[in-house]
Amino acid sequence: MSVIYDRVALIGLGLIASSMFWAMRRAGVAGEVAGYARSEATRETARRIGLCDRVCDTAREAVEGADLVVLCIPVGVMGDVAREIAPALKPGSTVTDVGSVKRDVIDNVAPEIPDGVHFVAGHPLAGTEHSGPESGFAELFDNRWTLLISADDTDPQALAKLRRFWEALGANVEEMDADHHDLVLAVTSHAPHLIAYTMVGVADDLRRVTDSEVIKYSAAGFRDFTRIAASDPTMWRDVFLKNREATLEILGRFTEELFALQRAIRTGDGDHLHAYFTRTRAIRRGIVEAGQDTDAPDFGRANRPK
Amino acid sequence: MSVIYDRVALIGLGLIASSMFWAMRRAGVAGEVAGYARSEATRETARRIGLCDRVCDTAREAVEGADLVVLCIPVGVMGDVAREIAPALKPGSTVTDVGSVKRDVIDNVAPEIPDGVHFVAGHPLAGTEHSGPESGFAELFDNRWTLLISADDTDPQALAKLRRFWEALGANVEEMDADHHDLVLAVTSHAPHLIAYTMVGVADDLRRVTDSEVIKYSAAGFRDFTRIAASDPTMWRDVFLKNREATLEILGRFTEELFALQRAIRTGDGDHLHAYFTRTRAIRRGIVEAGQDTDAPDFGRANRPK
Repeated sequence: MSVIYDRVALIGLGLIASSMFWAMRRAGVAGEVAGYARSEATRETARRIGLCDRVCDTAREAVEGADLVVLCIPVGVMGDVAREIAPALKPGSTVTDVGSVKRDVIDNVAPEIPDGVHFVAGHPLAGTEHSGPESGFAELFDNRWTLLISADDTDPQALAKLRRFWEALGANVEEMDADHHDLVLAVTSHAPHLIAYTMVGVADDLRRVTDSEVIKYSAAGFRDFTRIAASDPTMWRDVFLKNREATLEILGRFTEELFALQRAIRTGDGDHLHAYFTRTRAIRRGIVEAGQDTDAPDFGRANRPK
Repeated sequence: MSVIYDRVALIGLGLIASSMFWAMRRAGVAGEVAGYARSEATRETARRIGLCDRVCDTAREAVEGADLVVLCIPVGVMGDVAREIAPALKPGSTVTDVGSVKRDVIDNVAPEIPDGVHFVAGHPLAGTEHSGPESGFAELFDNRWTLLISADDTDPQALAKLRRFWEALGANVEEMDADHHDLVLAVTSHAPHLIAYTMVGVADDLRRVTDSEVIKYSAAGFRDFTRIAASDPTMWRDVFLKNREATLEILGRFTEELFALQRAIRTGDGDHLHAYFTRTRAIRRGIVEAGQDTDAPDFGRANRPK
């Protein structure tokens, strides 16, 4: 693979940025990679583990001369950071981001980007429940989807180049508009995360069932929720606040459906329940067939057969 | 390990029964194991793959002479099957079950059991999203909990022997009363399953987001829900109908909490959200430390680092 961007700057050095770095190294698509994190402890860790060729003490220093700048920070601070780095951006360069919400990020970042610099919003649909500079790994994006936002004013060449870059990192790439992205993600990610957080909180709250019971007996289903509910609190706070409308809409639909199922339980309508539970099995099959999850029992956890 | 029960009968040959058979073989704790399944196709599969030493065409035939009879069938039919096998049960033998609900099973099964036969209700907290006679494996119960129900009229020796048996199959064993069991399971299993089923159904229902989008982009969180929502529909229909009160109570608490979080999103109360999401992380740590789940990112799915 040949170099796609001579110089790349990663702003924020958490799970996504660190995975991008190792994936760039693996693919050989970036010349020099500079990195910046707001926290000094994170910068020190990055230097210690060799994350980035150069770790800078300011965001401006990191973006100077960069051909690609990637904002890997919570969506709530994207606008502020864009304003801060704007004067140092190289003419002709591309700025992108990895935020889980797109309309709000575009509204806040695009106005800060100087003429002659391209902004293409993006979102790799990949992650784990771990966070921080030591949680990244090169394989994170392999066969996962990265969504790039194509708008009327998006530069076609900058978009095409960014697509090639993500493909080199292992991802499949799809283009869509910002509002549709935010709705799709409300369904596949934001609402499920809020629901998982809620259920884990309820379990923790219950007086008549102790925490140690919840923990001991979690293998019966609950533990899958706790993985999701262990994700980064700051990132998720911002996601819900910034994708408010779509998330609340999906949660409204969810509550409506949940009430219908509760009613079926209360009235003893077994046929309704059975039909509903049969239908949801098909979706799982589709996901496994599409290569987006493993069919190994229990995700292939420890107790699996040989 | 020496033999604990000379003859064991497995009634129902799905995931749990087939895993019990392979775990008994591994441990050498059962002499002869007879099996019965209502469906002829299941019995044929069992014979083909060597599941059980003897596959019988009636439940009565399977339980004749058995020292331990294990009911591995949906909780909705436990009473009927107990009535059917009652005349053939061996004096001094033990009947147990593996159902996910205990109060209802005890109320329906106990009256059918003849004098001189012991009934000890049980529940192994283990499973995968797969079902049927070919889904079992010997390691399923390793380091998982099996709950045995201790009541005033439970025979201490029959209980102690059954405990040794489950420990030989790899499980940790705890005793508790039926009502507490049903409440704990409503929290750790039944409510989470209903919520997962609901969310997957909502995604499937949504007109503006296509099924193929839901499937493609599921790695963002949703796919964990689909695994749970792929569990056996008949089993789960019965669980909800038979643990109605406790499930509805927990769902009520869940809805209350969900509404509070929705309100925080609507009013922009980021502090509330952040504090809530920070608290739920601790539960995850507890589960990993207790050895009830892996700390490998994403459950150690395919994209993991070496």
